[in-house]
Amino acid sequence: MNDERLDPLARLTALLARLPGIGEKSALRLALAVVRSDGEFVSGLADALLSVRDELRLCETCNDLSSSEQCERCADPRRDRATLCVIAQPQDRMALERTGAFRGLYHVLHGVLDPLSGIGPSQLRLANLLPRLHNADEPIHEVIVATSPNLEGDATALYIAKLLAPFEVPVTRIASGVAVGGELEYADMTTLHRALQDRRRL
Amino acid sequence: MNDERLDPLARLTALLARLPGIGEKSALRLALAVVRSDGEFVSGLADALLSVRDELRLCETCNDLSSSEQCERCADPRRDRATLCVIAQPQDRMALERTGAFRGLYHVLHGVLDPLSGIGPSQLRLANLLPRLHNADEPIHEVIVATSPNLEGDATALYIAKLLAPFEVPVTRIASGVAVGGELEYADMTTLHRALQDRRRL
Repeated sequence: MNDERLDPLARLTALLARLPGIGEKSALRLALAVVRSDGEFVSGLADALLSVRDELRLCETCNDLSSSEQCERCADPRRDRATLCVIAQPQDRMALERTGAFRGLYHVLHGVLDPLSGIGPSQLRLANLLPRLHNADEPIHEVIVATSPNLEGDATALYIAKLLAPFEVPVTRIASGVAVGGELEYADMTTLHRALQDRRRL
Repeated sequence: MNDERLDPLARLTALLARLPGIGEKSALRLALAVVRSDGEFVSGLADALLSVRDELRLCETCNDLSSSEQCERCADPRRDRATLCVIAQPQDRMALERTGAFRGLYHVLHGVLDPLSGIGPSQLRLANLLPRLHNADEPIHEVIVATSPNLEGDATALYIAKLLAPFEVPVTRIASGVAVGGELEYADMTTLHRALQDRRRL
């Protein structure tokens, strides 16, 4: 792409490569798909990008996606305000809401601790978590840490448990073990180990 | 995403998922990255998409990317007009040009034969290949088929060889074998087989 006339392609490729999980080659492949696609699709995509920029923001209380200062859940008086569920990303809230098993409020960190990638506590959206426990209208009874049960998720959960220790609020962690419908035979060793360790009385 | 207020996000996700190699989950991940990114990046991306749509098209002769009816190479009198190189996609032309080893003209198919994905000869940009052999100002001396040496690429090469048989022009195929700098020990069986079969006298 050393030819000047392909500049729009090079520019689009460079911008696409800044999105997470998109490398140089994928970015070029996507940019070429845009060249081949019909004009209406491209206008729609450009328009959808601008709508997302203009209409979506992060909730001031819980950092979740929102179209106003307070997200739908934080503004909903029917939610249980005494239980907070700390999650890594909005997708996790979507997954949890689909179960219908949680009616409390969320706190979205937008990441997990990952020192190898240079992500420390200051990169997570933790600044507005403590004030939620300080200034709560009604006391928080439990903080559930629902980060993924892997190295980074576990480290993040421990960090939050320590951070919240002064509040004497119970901090819990979602269970991990053999997936429902899964086969014991195919579960990995660490999962089986955790499933045994966290066994519960029937 | 059953909440109406997140509609811009759902719309962006749906459009991104129509790009090749982007599934529902990746599309959502990308859309959320757009929410988190700064406004300037998003405007730049929307603008780059529209520039690509407005400024790039496919060359009428060779189907390569172009900013006018004829691409840079087809319009360049210094290129060797007697040799055609048939390739699957513009990225392949970029890779070949980087070698500096080919000075002829290209023909971009925008795909390879892949019956399992429903891609037959009519989905490839073959319609303007035959006229290039018919109407050439100077006779074409060789057509090199430089599709990838896999099932689909090989099938496409055979198809083109049959298609061009009436022209009695030599149709050749790029060599395949152990990559330069590669280790024999780690080459896969089929590659080694082909490397043996296509051995050449020193």
